Amino acid sequence: MENKGLVIVLTGDGKGKTTSALGMLLRMAGHDKKACVIQFMKSSDAGYGEFKMMDRLGIENHQVGAGCTWTVSKQATIDSIKEAWNLTKQKVLSDGYDCILLDELNIALSLPEIFEDKIIDASEVIHLIQQMRQQFPQRHLIITGRYAVPELIEEADLVSEIKDIKHPYTKGIKAQRGIEF
Amino acid sequence: MENKGLVIVLTGDGKGKTTSALGMLLRMAGHDKKACVIQFMKSSDAGYGEFKMMDRLGIENHQVGAGCTWTVSKQATIDSIKEAWNLTKQKVLSDGYDCILLDELNIALSLPEIFEDKIIDASEVIHLIQQMRQQFPQRHLIITGRYAVPELIEEADLVSEIKDIKHPYTKGIKAQRGIEF
Repeated sequence: MENKGLVIVLTGDGKGKTTSALGMLLRMAGHDKKACVIQFMKSSDAGYGEFKMMDRLGIENHQVGAGCTWTVSKQATIDSIKEAWNLTKQKVLSDGYDCILLDELNIALSLPEIFEDKIIDASEVIHLIQQMRQQFPQRHLIITGRYAVPELIEEADLVSEIKDIKHPYTKGIKAQRGIEF
Repeated sequence: MENKGLVIVLTGDGKGKTTSALGMLLRMAGHDKKACVIQFMKSSDAGYGEFKMMDRLGIENHQVGAGCTWTVSKQATIDSIKEAWNLTKQKVLSDGYDCILLDELNIALSLPEIFEDKIIDASEVIHLIQQMRQQFPQRHLIITGRYAVPELIEEADLVSEIKDIKHPYTKGIKAQRGIEF
């Protein structure tokens, strides 16, 4: 077997989690591998530079988020997470993918106001991963976002924590197009 | 001014430095911004998935490395670093780029056997950055690689340290196409 599917978790408070996952997708695409991206939290209205480029690269991508939790209602956030999670369960166990990226799932799992409502429980995520490992042992799964829960870190094959050593926000410099979004 | 150029350093022993930079380039391309990539250490012979995709995205990219330092001669490594550094000095101060990525420059700067020969001194890098900031204040510069030197961290606007929490190498699983290269 050429390939062993890896469960990869990119977490931490520093810049580079989603972009790192996108970079892996760029590599995947370079090897003609097929990926599917589900973006929790992020709305397709937002002008993220990656959306257009994933289309251009032929990478299937779904933005199922409601947007920033501080600008939309709690209910809209909850609904969008439910929708993204339902899509996740379907895609992770569907034929035809070499890699699936669940962008910002960690945030969806750990948002305190969401967590009370138990929209997604960590045990459901672990169960889905275990099903995927059985049915698609070569498939890679990448999960990004701060606050990865301990159960997920335990289950993963590769975990990188991206630490903020220095960030321009703290010097009052605003988010830059192409860098942050 | 819409944009303030940022000097971004992605360092640490974890997976995700180069891929994070590639993800930023994907975002840049999505905003029709022009990037130039110089890859130290990596040879274009190596089958990195990103090479083909950068071409397809219209991202100018140069692989000037000799390859892994444990498979090529010290002299080949030194020569390739000199060549990459000369190209870097030229591109960083050339018109027409929104972003320049110096992939694995940190390694080139810190490799002990190279360092003795002082191929590139940290002060030269800092000087080049300061010239760029003056001449192209909106230009972003991304520098990746383990072992970022303190002078560079001091000079940078944004530094993320990517820490290896768990890596499949330690479980004897080999590098995976699309993930590691």
